[in-house]
Amino acid sequence: MTAFPCGPIEVVGLDGDDTLWRNEEYFADTQEFFRALVAPHADGVDLDARLAENERRNLELFGFGVKGFTLSMIETAIEVSQGRVGASEVQALLDRGKAMLAQPVELLDGVAATVAELAPHYRLVLITKGDLLHQEQKLARSGLAELFWHIEIISEKDEPTYERILERHDIDRSRFVMVGNSVRSDILPVLAIGARAVHIPAALVWTYEHADHDGSVPTLRSIRDLPHWLASTAATAA
Amino acid sequence: MTAFPCGPIEVVGLDGDDTLWRNEEYFADTQEFFRALVAPHADGVDLDARLAENERRNLELFGFGVKGFTLSMIETAIEVSQGRVGASEVQALLDRGKAMLAQPVELLDGVAATVAELAPHYRLVLITKGDLLHQEQKLARSGLAELFWHIEIISEKDEPTYERILERHDIDRSRFVMVGNSVRSDILPVLAIGARAVHIPAALVWTYEHADHDGSVPTLRSIRDLPHWLASTAATAA
Repeated sequence: MTAFPCGPIEVVGLDGDDTLWRNEEYFADTQEFFRALVAPHADGVDLDARLAENERRNLELFGFGVKGFTLSMIETAIEVSQGRVGASEVQALLDRGKAMLAQPVELLDGVAATVAELAPHYRLVLITKGDLLHQEQKLARSGLAELFWHIEIISEKDEPTYERILERHDIDRSRFVMVGNSVRSDILPVLAIGARAVHIPAALVWTYEHADHDGSVPTLRSIRDLPHWLASTAATAA
Repeated sequence: MTAFPCGPIEVVGLDGDDTLWRNEEYFADTQEFFRALVAPHADGVDLDARLAENERRNLELFGFGVKGFTLSMIETAIEVSQGRVGASEVQALLDRGKAMLAQPVELLDGVAATVAELAPHYRLVLITKGDLLHQEQKLARSGLAELFWHIEIISEKDEPTYERILERHDIDRSRFVMVGNSVRSDILPVLAIGARAVHIPAALVWTYEHADHDGSVPTLRSIRDLPHWLASTAATAA
């Protein structure tokens, strides 16, 4: 017997952005567009750093998601150019924000097959943060909605929020695992409340989400490896 | 016996914006600010109509709430001025949006006492739409959070959403009443799914929310009258 949970998993929490579907690349592309647009009006300014700083400061009011990102881009463009960007640049940033919101969902490699494979054997919970409507739309566009037992769109992935989700659905933390790409949001707070987590790193990580775990967290190269990991966990516990 | 629900109420759904706390007035004030700011650059344009048109069109992507409203104001300012508004006007609109998000919550008259009076006798569910983080913050700032059995922050108040909420919490529709200021959002879809609704009109109604009911919906002048209405409903049913 150990204090660390080791029984078979019954409920699998799955992160959405960059675990199930492409996301950070759209932000990176838009940020490249932002740099090209604003650079001529802001000589020698580190545009990425200034945007990141404003995004961080605005998180408290805007929360996560495309709408807040768009407002932060507009604000940063005005600030770093000392008001030299005009209506056409602001409109171009607005249009990019809208395009991000309208973007079709691209599932990551192996997601459709793996989620369908897991659904009959585990209770799946989508746990995702960002703009409420946009996350709902992404889920609807993903074609995966019916495979989930519950959907949790939340404003912050911290310990109290995970505690609340487990409590609300009467989930035993020793039977729960969270699967995601962000160490900061999907792994550390879940370990902190005594549940398990599996890390599936993504190609790109937003600087805000950057964090490391101590190396003891199960790390998979692809979501395709998740069914095997879950089965071997059950075998070990038996 | 009648098909219309008539048993005693067990669960009371309460709308947030303009039912529990002031909201539409902040939008109206900001819109007045918008008009004064943009009018000099847009001779003879009906600014309210143009903003309303853009808000409506953008709802599909932005959803309800202050962030989308701010983006729509910026877009409209650029459009109606044919690009003559500059960085300072855009920044001013951004600042107004942020001020709206940071605004302290002002409970409407009678709300604090009435919600506290109802909480021991009914299961209270807050059912509110808008930006997820902002609605959470308003609830936290309201001081009422602990009085609610459940919190439902949703992207649209339509029939399927109400159906889903009742189902999720195992609420019998004949034991549920929704209380709110918006006929379109709080009353009509609730009646349509066979539950009851009580209308408490607010001083200001956003044009988008405007709708009428047929006059048969119980209408209270103040939330202070709600405990009496609930008690008399139970007495009639007994």
